[in-house]
Amino acid sequence: VYKVTWDAVSAERGGYPHFMLKEIHEQPKAVRDTLRGRVADDLSRVTLDDIHMDEAYTKKVDRIHIVACGTSWHAGLVGKAVIEQYARIPVDVEIASEYRYRSPIFSENTLVIVISQSGETADTLAALREVKQQGLRVLAITNVVGSSAAREADDVIVTWAGPEIAVASTKAYTTQLAALYLLAIHFAHVRGHLADAEVRELIEALDGLPAIAEQVLDTAPQLENFAARYVEATDAFFIGRGLDYSLSLEGALKLKEISYIHAEAYAAGELKHGTLALITEGVPVIALATQPQLYEKTVSNIVEVKARGAFVLGMTWVGNEDLEKSVDEVIYLPKTLPALAPLVAVIPMQLLSYYAAVARGNDVDKPRNLAKSVTVE
Amino acid sequence: VYKVTWDAVSAERGGYPHFMLKEIHEQPKAVRDTLRGRVADDLSRVTLDDIHMDEAYTKKVDRIHIVACGTSWHAGLVGKAVIEQYARIPVDVEIASEYRYRSPIFSENTLVIVISQSGETADTLAALREVKQQGLRVLAITNVVGSSAAREADDVIVTWAGPEIAVASTKAYTTQLAALYLLAIHFAHVRGHLADAEVRELIEALDGLPAIAEQVLDTAPQLENFAARYVEATDAFFIGRGLDYSLSLEGALKLKEISYIHAEAYAAGELKHGTLALITEGVPVIALATQPQLYEKTVSNIVEVKARGAFVLGMTWVGNEDLEKSVDEVIYLPKTLPALAPLVAVIPMQLLSYYAAVARGNDVDKPRNLAKSVTVE
Repeated sequence: VYKVTWDAVSAERGGYPHFMLKEIHEQPKAVRDTLRGRVADDLSRVTLDDIHMDEAYTKKVDRIHIVACGTSWHAGLVGKAVIEQYARIPVDVEIASEYRYRSPIFSENTLVIVISQSGETADTLAALREVKQQGLRVLAITNVVGSSAAREADDVIVTWAGPEIAVASTKAYTTQLAALYLLAIHFAHVRGHLADAEVRELIEALDGLPAIAEQVLDTAPQLENFAARYVEATDAFFIGRGLDYSLSLEGALKLKEISYIHAEAYAAGELKHGTLALITEGVPVIALATQPQLYEKTVSNIVEVKARGAFVLGMTWVGNEDLEKSVDEVIYLPKTLPALAPLVAVIPMQLLSYYAAVARGNDVDKPRNLAKSVTVE
Repeated sequence: VYKVTWDAVSAERGGYPHFMLKEIHEQPKAVRDTLRGRVADDLSRVTLDDIHMDEAYTKKVDRIHIVACGTSWHAGLVGKAVIEQYARIPVDVEIASEYRYRSPIFSENTLVIVISQSGETADTLAALREVKQQGLRVLAITNVVGSSAAREADDVIVTWAGPEIAVASTKAYTTQLAALYLLAIHFAHVRGHLADAEVRELIEALDGLPAIAEQVLDTAPQLENFAARYVEATDAFFIGRGLDYSLSLEGALKLKEISYIHAEAYAAGELKHGTLALITEGVPVIALATQPQLYEKTVSNIVEVKARGAFVLGMTWVGNEDLEKSVDEVIYLPKTLPALAPLVAVIPMQLLSYYAAVARGNDVDKPRNLAKSVTVE
């Protein structure tokens, strides 16, 4: 007679020791699900049938305010970069708890995009209601069908990440990026900033991201090994330029919330204006160098932190072995378009935080002091 | 026979043990000098005779990009808030090393304001040159007459702070704020967003700032005493909302660059989205609560960090004893208009960093790894 111990929670975790690790591994599928049905079968155009902006409106939007908190705010920073790059619509990215208490300046053609995994984030919802009252159109990007944000916004893009249980957000972020990429391409195409061939190239690259994300998950052992360095670490820095800076912010937040290491992100070019004073022998620095056009400038900052004794983990595209000259270890990422790199480059950082938290014996899925959805102000 | 030991450096320091302390104390005079001659004798209007924008141009500016690095970038954040509040011109504040490598979107009526104490900051100058080439008008705020920024910009507002020797910038920041206040009032007045009576009220308040700054210097013993807590501290957090958040960023940078404590600023409303995990027993938190309209919301965040055991130094306007209920110690600031509070509220933070660095035995005027002007990229 066998005694079967049924552990419901472990079953829900699908065999993973923590929800966070399970959710990290669900990202290829989550991104695929979020893209599905939103691009034409022949990959010729984005078909956002669940948003109701007609062509005239899509063309007359003259500014976008992205409003969000935490990880969703970081996704918004990537959104700004790609919307400005492809659609040439100027974008402001605002922290909801700041935005709602000042009187932001907008025109009647300002579109507000709110991003919230739960669709119930208190400050984000309050901002949504405030701008709606002022007559602005609001598009919500949320993971929960039927959430307050989904119900109250004029248009909704649902991210199909499935339930996210771990407090530290992972698949919500990557699917938010997928939604923002779709939106950027859509706006750019309708407004005539991208030719059909360029749109197709972008959509093909987008379509290839889930497979690349699968490959990136294979970096796990390297990051588990590297995370051992963080058992005793008290501080860590993430540096990068452009999209890599936005990504650094998310990497630092992830590490901070579950490992309790004081991690901070810095625009690499800002280091010399103060933070360099904190770089001493052995301080771990994660240097993101996924953007070819910024590569040389970033390397010059890496050289500065190395000269002060930092232990540097670099991340760059596969084949760029040049980085090995300047750092202690390199994570290589499969090639994609630079604008799409954040969606895959975030995965090693999620893994790093995860393994650092495990190595430090922390409660990974329920970090101290934090709640999953911040539904109070 | 007396032997006289002549110490040239000490003489230059005017009797102060460090240039930084001397420069902190020079702020009332520096701000007075920066305002002098730039407001009409009867305080009825701002007279920026050294800028050559005619009324037609002043009225048609439709967006402002403020571009700067480090402390000057923090001044720019305050500039954004006051220009948007009074003149209702939307403002983007950009880190120069980020701005120059992307292709920012602007119209022909976008004004670019560069801020640099030395007027030689490499990234800021490169950005200036780039936008000039694209035909945009540039206004420079700099402390050095004849610097590259002063020579190459279309218009210049010189801050009359006098030579700043200490690496950690103090009087450059406060005089940059004075210049930005003048500019905000000027734009608002010419564009008809402020009535004559409101302009007068603002200018009177501005005119009163040097005297208030003098009074705030009297908080020095309280801060010297509080700084003793920082001898062993490894981390510190600065929190605030709105203008207090911009100020938090400057407070954290100051502490970081000379005390080498890992200080970080957070928009108070963002704490719950991650950083709260780092707040444990005894962690020092500086809570800025100088903005009456945000006071209650900030207090609710203070209560959260207190509940996790933080040791909180609060800062608020004199008479607001309510704050004593929620924090461990309070610094009271003389009353002024909330929009002008940053110029005086920064002083206790400068003093705190100074005394913390002294208590830790650091080389205050020449912190490790940092140069006064970042003239290389």
